[in-house]
Amino acid sequence: MAKMALAIHGGAGTIVRSAMTPELESEYRGGLEAALKAGWEVLDRGGSALDAVEEAVTSLEDFPLFNAGRGSVFNHEGKNEMDAAIMDGSRLKAGAVAFVRNVKNPIKLARLVMEKTEHVLLAGDGAIQFAEEMDVELRDNAYFFTQHRWQQLEDAIAAGKVQLDHAAGKPVGTVGAVACDSQGRLAAATSTGGMTNKKFGRVGDTPIIGSGTYADRTCAVSGTGHGEYFMLGVTAFDVAARMKYKAITLEVAARETIDHLTSIGGEGGLIAVDTHGNVILPFNSEGMYRASIVDGVSIIDIYK
Amino acid sequence: MAKMALAIHGGAGTIVRSAMTPELESEYRGGLEAALKAGWEVLDRGGSALDAVEEAVTSLEDFPLFNAGRGSVFNHEGKNEMDAAIMDGSRLKAGAVAFVRNVKNPIKLARLVMEKTEHVLLAGDGAIQFAEEMDVELRDNAYFFTQHRWQQLEDAIAAGKVQLDHAAGKPVGTVGAVACDSQGRLAAATSTGGMTNKKFGRVGDTPIIGSGTYADRTCAVSGTGHGEYFMLGVTAFDVAARMKYKAITLEVAARETIDHLTSIGGEGGLIAVDTHGNVILPFNSEGMYRASIVDGVSIIDIYK
Repeated sequence: MAKMALAIHGGAGTIVRSAMTPELESEYRGGLEAALKAGWEVLDRGGSALDAVEEAVTSLEDFPLFNAGRGSVFNHEGKNEMDAAIMDGSRLKAGAVAFVRNVKNPIKLARLVMEKTEHVLLAGDGAIQFAEEMDVELRDNAYFFTQHRWQQLEDAIAAGKVQLDHAAGKPVGTVGAVACDSQGRLAAATSTGGMTNKKFGRVGDTPIIGSGTYADRTCAVSGTGHGEYFMLGVTAFDVAARMKYKAITLEVAARETIDHLTSIGGEGGLIAVDTHGNVILPFNSEGMYRASIVDGVSIIDIYK
Repeated sequence: MAKMALAIHGGAGTIVRSAMTPELESEYRGGLEAALKAGWEVLDRGGSALDAVEEAVTSLEDFPLFNAGRGSVFNHEGKNEMDAAIMDGSRLKAGAVAFVRNVKNPIKLARLVMEKTEHVLLAGDGAIQFAEEMDVELRDNAYFFTQHRWQQLEDAIAAGKVQLDHAAGKPVGTVGAVACDSQGRLAAATSTGGMTNKKFGRVGDTPIIGSGTYADRTCAVSGTGHGEYFMLGVTAFDVAARMKYKAITLEVAARETIDHLTSIGGEGGLIAVDTHGNVILPFNSEGMYRASIVDGVSIIDIYK
C-alpha cells in the first residue's frame, strides 16, 4: 500500500494579507477544506487518484471565490470561457477542453474527452457539442455570474488591460489537484476561468498537457500562475523530466522547475506528488491558496 | 560561426512506394526542394534561424500536396481549419494559432502572435480577428480547395472515420522546419491542416509548445504524426529535456524520444537540430517526407 496523498490549489499570485478580511480568509479556507475533504474521501475508501482529483477540482469549480467553473472571470465580450485538463499517470492518458461555456464542471468534460474519445484536447463550439452529446450538466449564464468578477471586467476595460484573475490587482487564478492513491497511481487535474478581459481567443497553460497539467508514473503536477511562462517552460512536464532524467527527488526537481520559471520571468506555483506520496507545493509569488493531506494529516495555507 | 543547418518535413506515416507514381514522387521532391531553398537562402545571407524556418514553412504551406496552408484537409463541416506554431530558441519565445480559416500562411500569423502579443496561443474566431487586425494575407475558400482533399473527406465520411491526412490510407500530414543559423541560434516551426473529417474542435500537437514544436538553446524540434501521442509524450520538449538533463547528444536523445513514442503506441517522426548544426530526422513510420541541408550539402528523402 502506497502512502496516500492529495494536494490542491486555488491559484497563486499577489495575495496581499492587508487586503484580506478575516471573513474572506475564512471563506477561502472553507473552500479549500471542502475540496480537500471531497478528494480525500475518494482515496480513503480505496478509490483512484484519478477520481480523487476529479472530485476535488469539481468542488473547487463549484466554489464561487476561485477562478474556475462558477466564479470564472469574464472575457472581453463579458462571457465566461473555461479551460480544464485531467491526466491519468498510470495509463498515460489525458483529456482537456478549452473555451467551453455553460458547462457546470469543465473538469468532468475533460475526463469524458479522455475516456470517450481518441483525442486529448477539444475546443470551442466543438467541445460544447461534445458536452451536449455526453449529456453533461449545463448551467445558464446567471449561474456563472458573480458581482466581483463583473466588477473586475469593468475595471479592466476601464484600465485598458487584459488581466489574469485578480485578488488584489495582480494575477491569481486557476484551481487544481494532484493525488497518489493506495496503489501508488498518480493523477493531476487543473481548471480555470482564464483571464479577465481576455481577447483574441487566448489559450493559457491549463488545458495544455505538459504545461499546466501532467502526470505519469513519476509524478503528477498541476500549475497556476502566468500561463504563458508555464507554456514556454513546459513547466508541469519539466518536473517529471528532471526526476526521470536527472534521477533526483520530487522536491529537488520541483524547486529547480520553479527556479527556471523565475529565471524566465514567470510568476506562479505548482503542486506535485510522487508515487511515494511525497507532496510539494512551491511558488515564487506572494501567496498561493493551497492545501494538502498525507496519510490523513492535512494543512491549509495561503501566504508564504 | 556555427555550422548552419536546416531540416524540413512534409509529414510522416504510411507512404507506400507502390502507391506512388514517379510523377507524384517528383512533385513531392520538388516541393521539399523549393522549401529547403527558401529557408537556406535566409541562412546563407546571414539571416536568423527564426526567419529561415518561417520562410521554409511558408513555402511548404503554399505547396498544395502537403497538409498545411493550401492543400489542408477538410474537417467534418467541409472547412479547412489550420494550426501552426513557431518558437525562437534563443529568446525562448513562441507563438501559435489554432483553428484559423482563410489565412494564407498560418505560420506568419503564429510569428505575429509571438512578436505582437503577450500570449503564446490564440485560437478560433479570436485568432482570425487578430489576423484581420494584423492585416495578414487572407484567401477565399476556393484557394484552399484541392480535389484530392475533398475526395478524402467524402471517403472518410462514407467510412465513418476521423482520419489524419492520407497518402495511402494511413496518417501522413503536417509540415515543419528547424534551423541553426550562423550565430548558433535555433528555431522551430510547424504547420498543419489537421485531420480529415475531424469533429468536436479537436486540437492536435502542432500548436502545442512542447508537443509538436519546441526550441530553446539546446535544440529545436518539429514533430509530425499521430498528434495525440505527441501530446501525451510531450515529444518535442522531451528531446530537449533528455539532452539537458541526461547530458546526451541530440542523436541519442531524439532516438530515445522516438523509442518512447513507439512504446506508448504513437506513430510519426520528428526533425531536430542542435547548436552545433547537427541534424537528425528519425521516424517510426514507413516514411517521412523530409529534407535537410548542412553547410550547403542537401539530402531529400521519403522512404526509410
